[in-house]
Amino acid sequence: MLPEELDGVLVEECGVVATVDHGEASNLTYLGLHALQHRGQESVGIASLCSNSMHIRRKMGRVAETLTPEDLSSLPGDRAIGHVRYSTAGGSVLRNAQPIFVELRFGPVAFAHNGNLTNADVLRRQLESSGSIFHSTSDTEVIAHLVARSRKDSLEEALVEALLQVRGAYSLVVLSREGVHAVRDAHGVRPLVLGRIENGWMVASETSSLDLIRAEFVREIEPGELLTFDPSGLQRSQRPFAPVTPTPCIFELVYFARPDSTIFGRSVYAARVNMGRELARSTSIGADLVVPVPDSGVPAALGYSRESGVPFELGLIRSHYVGRTFIEPSSSIRHFGVKLKLNPVAGLLRGKRVVVVDDSVVRGTTSRKIVKMIREAGASEVHFRVASPPTRWPCFYGIDTPVRSQLIAATHSLDEIRDYITADSIGYLTMEGLRRACAVAGEDGTDGTRFCEACFSGDYPIELSDEARRSNAKDPASDEAG
Amino acid sequence: MLPEELDGVLVEECGVVATVDHGEASNLTYLGLHALQHRGQESVGIASLCSNSMHIRRKMGRVAETLTPEDLSSLPGDRAIGHVRYSTAGGSVLRNAQPIFVELRFGPVAFAHNGNLTNADVLRRQLESSGSIFHSTSDTEVIAHLVARSRKDSLEEALVEALLQVRGAYSLVVLSREGVHAVRDAHGVRPLVLGRIENGWMVASETSSLDLIRAEFVREIEPGELLTFDPSGLQRSQRPFAPVTPTPCIFELVYFARPDSTIFGRSVYAARVNMGRELARSTSIGADLVVPVPDSGVPAALGYSRESGVPFELGLIRSHYVGRTFIEPSSSIRHFGVKLKLNPVAGLLRGKRVVVVDDSVVRGTTSRKIVKMIREAGASEVHFRVASPPTRWPCFYGIDTPVRSQLIAATHSLDEIRDYITADSIGYLTMEGLRRACAVAGEDGTDGTRFCEACFSGDYPIELSDEARRSNAKDPASDEAG
Amino acid sequence: MLPEELDGVLVEECGVVATVDHGEASNLTYLGLHALQHRGQESVGIASLCSNSMHIRRKMGRVAETLTPEDLSSLPGDRAIGHVRYSTAGGSVLRNAQPIFVELRFGPVAFAHNGNLTNADVLRRQLESSGSIFHSTSDTEVIAHLVARSRKDSLEEALVEALLQVRGAYSLVVLSREGVHAVRDAHGVRPLVLGRIENGWMVASETSSLDLIRAEFVREIEPGELLTFDPSGLQRSQRPFAPVTPTPCIFELVYFARPDSTIFGRSVYAARVNMGRELARSTSIGADLVVPVPDSGVPAALGYSRESGVPFELGLIRSHYVGRTFIEPSSSIRHFGVKLKLNPVAGLLRGKRVVVVDDSVVRGTTSRKIVKMIREAGASEVHFRVASPPTRWPCFYGIDTPVRSQLIAATHSLDEIRDYITADSIGYLTMEGLRRACAVAGEDGTDGTRFCEACFSGDYPIELSDEARRSNAKDPASDEAG
Amino acid sequence: MLPEELDGVLVEECGVVATVDHGEASNLTYLGLHALQHRGQESVGIASLCSNSMHIRRKMGRVAETLTPEDLSSLPGDRAIGHVRYSTAGGSVLRNAQPIFVELRFGPVAFAHNGNLTNADVLRRQLESSGSIFHSTSDTEVIAHLVARSRKDSLEEALVEALLQVRGAYSLVVLSREGVHAVRDAHGVRPLVLGRIENGWMVASETSSLDLIRAEFVREIEPGELLTFDPSGLQRSQRPFAPVTPTPCIFELVYFARPDSTIFGRSVYAARVNMGRELARSTSIGADLVVPVPDSGVPAALGYSRESGVPFELGLIRSHYVGRTFIEPSSSIRHFGVKLKLNPVAGLLRGKRVVVVDDSVVRGTTSRKIVKMIREAGASEVHFRVASPPTRWPCFYGIDTPVRSQLIAATHSLDEIRDYITADSIGYLTMEGLRRACAVAGEDGTDGTRFCEACFSGDYPIELSDEARRSNAKDPASDEAG
Repeated sequence: MLPEELDGVLVEECGVVATVDHGEASNLTYLGLHALQHRGQESVGIASLCSNSMHIRRKMGRVAETLTPEDLSSLPGDRAIGHVRYSTAGGSVLRNAQPIFVELRFGPVAFAHNGNLTNADVLRRQLESSGSIFHSTSDTEVIAHLVARSRKDSLEEALVEALLQVRGAYSLVVLSREGVHAVRDAHGVRPLVLGRIENGWMVASETSSLDLIRAEFVREIEPGELLTFDPSGLQRSQRPFAPVTPTPCIFELVYFARPDSTIFGRSVYAARVNMGRELARSTSIGADLVVPVPDSGVPAALGYSRESGVPFELGLIRSHYVGRTFIEPSSSIRHFGVKLKLNPVAGLLRGKRVVVVDDSVVRGTTSRKIVKMIREAGASEVHFRVASPPTRWPCFYGIDTPVRSQLIAATHSLDEIRDYITADSIGYLTMEGLRRACAVAGEDGTDGTRFCEACFSGDYPIELSDEARRSNAKDPASDEAG
Repeated sequence: MLPEELDGVLVEECGVVATVDHGEASNLTYLGLHALQHRGQESVGIASLCSNSMHIRRKMGRVAETLTPEDLSSLPGDRAIGHVRYSTAGGSVLRNAQPIFVELRFGPVAFAHNGNLTNADVLRRQLESSGSIFHSTSDTEVIAHLVARSRKDSLEEALVEALLQVRGAYSLVVLSREGVHAVRDAHGVRPLVLGRIENGWMVASETSSLDLIRAEFVREIEPGELLTFDPSGLQRSQRPFAPVTPTPCIFELVYFARPDSTIFGRSVYAARVNMGRELARSTSIGADLVVPVPDSGVPAALGYSRESGVPFELGLIRSHYVGRTFIEPSSSIRHFGVKLKLNPVAGLLRGKRVVVVDDSVVRGTTSRKIVKMIREAGASEVHFRVASPPTRWPCFYGIDTPVRSQLIAATHSLDEIRDYITADSIGYLTMEGLRRACAVAGEDGTDGTRFCEACFSGDYPIELSDEARRSNAKDPASDEAG
Repeated sequence: MLPEELDGVLVEECGVVATVDHGEASNLTYLGLHALQHRGQESVGIASLCSNSMHIRRKMGRVAETLTPEDLSSLPGDRAIGHVRYSTAGGSVLRNAQPIFVELRFGPVAFAHNGNLTNADVLRRQLESSGSIFHSTSDTEVIAHLVARSRKDSLEEALVEALLQVRGAYSLVVLSREGVHAVRDAHGVRPLVLGRIENGWMVASETSSLDLIRAEFVREIEPGELLTFDPSGLQRSQRPFAPVTPTPCIFELVYFARPDSTIFGRSVYAARVNMGRELARSTSIGADLVVPVPDSGVPAALGYSRESGVPFELGLIRSHYVGRTFIEPSSSIRHFGVKLKLNPVAGLLRGKRVVVVDDSVVRGTTSRKIVKMIREAGASEVHFRVASPPTRWPCFYGIDTPVRSQLIAATHSLDEIRDYITADSIGYLTMEGLRRACAVAGEDGTDGTRFCEACFSGDYPIELSDEARRSNAKDPASDEAG
Repeated sequence: MLPEELDGVLVEECGVVATVDHGEASNLTYLGLHALQHRGQESVGIASLCSNSMHIRRKMGRVAETLTPEDLSSLPGDRAIGHVRYSTAGGSVLRNAQPIFVELRFGPVAFAHNGNLTNADVLRRQLESSGSIFHSTSDTEVIAHLVARSRKDSLEEALVEALLQVRGAYSLVVLSREGVHAVRDAHGVRPLVLGRIENGWMVASETSSLDLIRAEFVREIEPGELLTFDPSGLQRSQRPFAPVTPTPCIFELVYFARPDSTIFGRSVYAARVNMGRELARSTSIGADLVVPVPDSGVPAALGYSRESGVPFELGLIRSHYVGRTFIEPSSSIRHFGVKLKLNPVAGLLRGKRVVVVDDSVVRGTTSRKIVKMIREAGASEVHFRVASPPTRWPCFYGIDTPVRSQLIAATHSLDEIRDYITADSIGYLTMEGLRRACAVAGEDGTDGTRFCEACFSGDYPIELSDEARRSNAKDPASDEAG
């Protein structure tokens, strides 16, 4: 089991929270994680520090179903960090749950990390060959070992020395006797925001965490910024990394972040409505109804409806009782998959020309089931519209997309995709349309922000050192296939 | 603990399923229950019959999280019945979970019941005083004891004799060596539908169960109809009860049933969009946005938007990770209740005149939190619109509404409600508007159906024999308060 | 599963405890049950009464491993009853665990019972045919239904009316708002003792329960006596049953009771040493060592050694980590059964003539394995001695012996048994020797007590009404086989 | 929590097993551990290797109650190692359970260790200061890190290099792709035996493991011997350590090992009977009965009885349902401690002069309770005899004895001990008597073996490097106190 995990690339989707100088640090961290539950439903963990002792609870499962009042009461102290996580199958074990906890020269230290390193395998092999013993397959443990090997006098300096050796995307929070550190990689791929609550501070992946506990949004932590909250209450900012052009992840806006969050200075909901409008402009077709794939396709479908004038109907009902990672109960009922999540509204679609709007298409298998379901409900035509460009490349920076061979748009033409999903027509948003949709309000075109668009374009802004990652990425010769 | 349960009225919300003559009876019943999960998330149970042996599994929790493949494989046989349940606090124990199983002269018998009897206490006292021993506080056990006491020769006859003694609302399925019985009370308060799958039959509370397994909808089981499937495959219908005018529950259309179901011959979704249209006609006001309270308020908000022309926005985002019965993690964070479920979309509401549409208002406490949340998000005006009339009376027929003193509309005027929830204005749908909205498609006004509207009007179509029930219902002198 | 349980006879081995008028009633009951753990390791339960409310906890497993401090703290009140239970496979479910709890006209009532009724099936059929619904297969529920059907004004009178209808062996404790009742059947088959602790009282199956909590032994509850402790602190004794000659169970002295207990006015340990002495007198043989089958054979082996002069050695070591009902971990290691429990001391037995002493032999399979084990350890001769007569008849009064066909002494001659277990010789204690060994100290022969010796003689002192029981018992024609 | 564990000395009692070249390696290892359950009941673990993949299961609790058939079936492969463990309170967490598993240059490696290192803290501090990250507080992880840091080409060479750096007692088994290594420290403090089963091999702490699965005892693994079983089936022995005079632990013979085991070439049972004989010779007194403290005192009491002629009686009955580490259920019943385990036989002791024989006395608190219990049962005199010398020094080599201040014989004279335990007289075995008792059969006096007798004498044969250990050991000035 273990060796298989070490092969290939372990992709993790995560959310992080830190609370500083607040009497209910672990409770607030718990709530902050609850608001980030969409970023990872597989494991949850919180570490707190009280009188120089570290306390930690890590469990498989979702925040509210897993952490108990007893857990929270066993996490005392006025500062805490927390983590939610989803990962590809091989890494789905408690051992890989975060925060990662280690005992170092500096005392107990806990790390919680959102992102993926691109030279983790190289570094891990170097560390192992000089005698480090790893206990997980998580990238985060690489950082912990680099910190342990540093000869610097403070954890802060050792952390900087460690981070100067890693490549990749990270929004990282670190808890120790020195305080709390929050750091975002120089490319700023993953979001990280700063908030104020009473006399304390909160750091979180998205503003939804701040909203839940009515914390005030202060600002984003900047790409390449390391923020330190020390036990005396001081807070200081430094920028220890070589400056590069930031490339925030555009897929956070397309799908991953919550619609009610504001990240990278943008309202996620407004960006998605804009995507729907842009989509309607370029792929409009005569129809009777616009139906979203709920819930992620709703804002884009509203935008499409408004721009096209075709009425919006909630023609597919989503069951609240199945999460993203539904496991089917037995082999005999395998084929019920999508129907457990979605069901068409009886009568509404009969004889109608239906435009279905989804945020993105990965493998195409779910889209195919949805088209068939709508047609069986009596629709006369089914037109599939996707509020983002074709997804053709895997992500190595913290989104769990499959390898190229499983991405339908990497191996099929538009006509082939349309035929596979059995739609009457298909339409994707253009890259330019997506950029316009993500431009900050008030501007007509792009606003100068350069996003990481690697999943659509194959242009990876951060070097891919590890072999397993490189072999999945674009090489010049195969560019046309992209 | 026990004596407290026996005081007062135990209200249960439920869904039932039966599968007959199908090799995967318990699997299909499991899936059917999954599609009825909204009718009860507290306990789930399935009983199956194989070679004259009864098998049963009952657990606290939701269908998908509770029943395992091992459970299903230990439920062999080609016929099964199932049940999901929610109840008021006192009755929330495994002992009250259904199906209820008893060993009778007729062999093992299992009962699953949706509804509430109105003379359960009277009957229970009579049975106990003549030596019957009860093991639960569920109304369903009253029926089981009446069947046990009958001197009739067959379970079918004994069941009829028992049902002739009870008053109330019930959609009941019974599994025994004689086959499966499905019966709906003469008033037809709760829905019950019949479907066909391959060579077998399926009975369920709503059509959503049939849709999930692609069973064909055959017809509704009629009010007062007892349908029997015997082991030889025969099916017969009888009407053993004195005929009365049916009064299906209008609150199923307002809130309780799934929007994608068809019950009482009506599309639930279409009825709710109509409610929104009717609401806009009578309570329209100048506004910039229509925002639903998701998910149940969405169809009415769409109808309101269409009729009024005010744009629809999904301005409140609902977290998928909290169910209807969220239990807060510790006392220190009590007040976060609604925020765990709902969060406004940042920026969208700022400076806007907002119409909020919800399906109904019970205690008013949640509405008050929602209005405050929208105002804190920057709305300049908040107008609350309710797509049903004021809820002024408790239900004794299977919906878990609280006692009168906790129903805000039973004790407050419209102006007082508006002030309590801190809205700029409030508007409810009229009784006539609701009836028009529920009239079958193509008709302009009502279609002759007389609904049970007791929760709005206090006119209870089925006699309330039990003292605890009577004391909560309308008496002539207090009518004006309603 | 259920119908199978109802066939045949459900045999239960049990221990009961009651504590009255003591502030820590459930804690003392817990400890009392701990001292009776040998009487049943399958389920444990305690019911307590506080301010007219009944509290109950029942769990599968042993006392100390199952009941938690939380369980005990949820059992408030100054009186409580408790039960430990073992049963034949079919009845091994939580539903059959005791105390049984029912809600009657008299309020909540709990019953805990040691013994077996011999007309339970007849009574159950009568009750079911007149409409009673049973929820377990336990004999105790028959008593509960008879009490429920009584028209008497008090629980005490109803209990007497119920017990007048049952046949069999019972030591029963009952908890209700009327107080605590403790009653022993007129034959006095199972033991029941009364103790005093501070200002309260304790009733228990054996004196070991009193010893553990340092309660003072007062006296045995007499055969046919019903003792009542009412809430006002009064205690009264009555003898409502027709007098019969008492027949206490001699097998309690042979095997079932703890060696440190005093029951039926006798020291169990002393009786067993006497059995060994008697055994040596009648079956002595030249040997080098006497080795007991630990732990139950130790006192008899000591007696044998003393009488015969052959040295006693603990030549078989018993593992503390396997209970009476060891379940083997996987099919591949089935044959390790006895070795997990017993292992010979290396070197000690080599070349020696060994007398092995066990308390009784039931199926003979374990004896066979022990003889082989001792021979493999190098013994030159193995002589098997049994400190009781051949066990030839099943018990219907509360000891879990198998049906006749599985009792080796019911179907094999002494020579055949010797050959089957591969011993060099075999010797059983005579019936007369056993009676002498059980005679009270100071007397030479029997002391007038007539024991129930049915398992050895087939003479059942209490009528066997139920068909399943009768068919297993002795009929005149087969007497010679016994 | 963590920092507290790291303070002081973590003492671990353990048993180890390895199975090589057998199709049911994990099943046999499971059974081998079952036979070593007395060496540690707190956690259990097994690691197996199949097709170069490591599989591991570690759980808190006892072998039979914890490991399930599912666990065993998830441990495939033809070689496995296992471990049972008990430790002082601070270390009682799953994280410290063994086998320890690490991923090294050599692939996956698992370690299982019985013993204690005496320079573990020194080595741990060195390793941490150069960047190693520890995940447990177990000494075994120190060995794993030393192996990881080695530059040798094979695991075998790296293991030797690591072991050359550690001081202390260890019987260690190691599982890797290179095969299985079994090694015993040069002093040979803890036992380790080699057995043959079919075409495979078994290594275990005691012969009881071999007996259970009917494996043939081959020989002891010698002090300082490293035995290697490589995947090609070859087996080789080497002695890589500087030779010293072996000092096997005499306390294994006194108490720790199973009586049916043969270790250090001696029958444990025979040695203990001899200890009782020697004890009678030097401490005999007029008495009516000899009563052992069961079960560990039984063989010595038999020896005492035989030598003195005073009759042996099993006057204290031990409950099978309480293990060595009983946890009392609630504060209100704290004082029942010993009574839950032991109860005197009623009547047997009344008016008698009783000699009580125990194997050793540590704190004296249990002895005091036993003396009082026997006196309350009516004994006229109670004489306490201990079949070993006074225990005056803590063990740092793998037995969980408390610090000096808690050892009654370290701080009290014999008369004071007698008074404290309220006995009429006390007598200990002399050191010379103990050595004679442990001499191999046939010899009259000692046989040249030099045992580690540090717990009695304070002479520690292996250097104590760690500060916490040194401070608890004997210094010249305090010698007289010993």
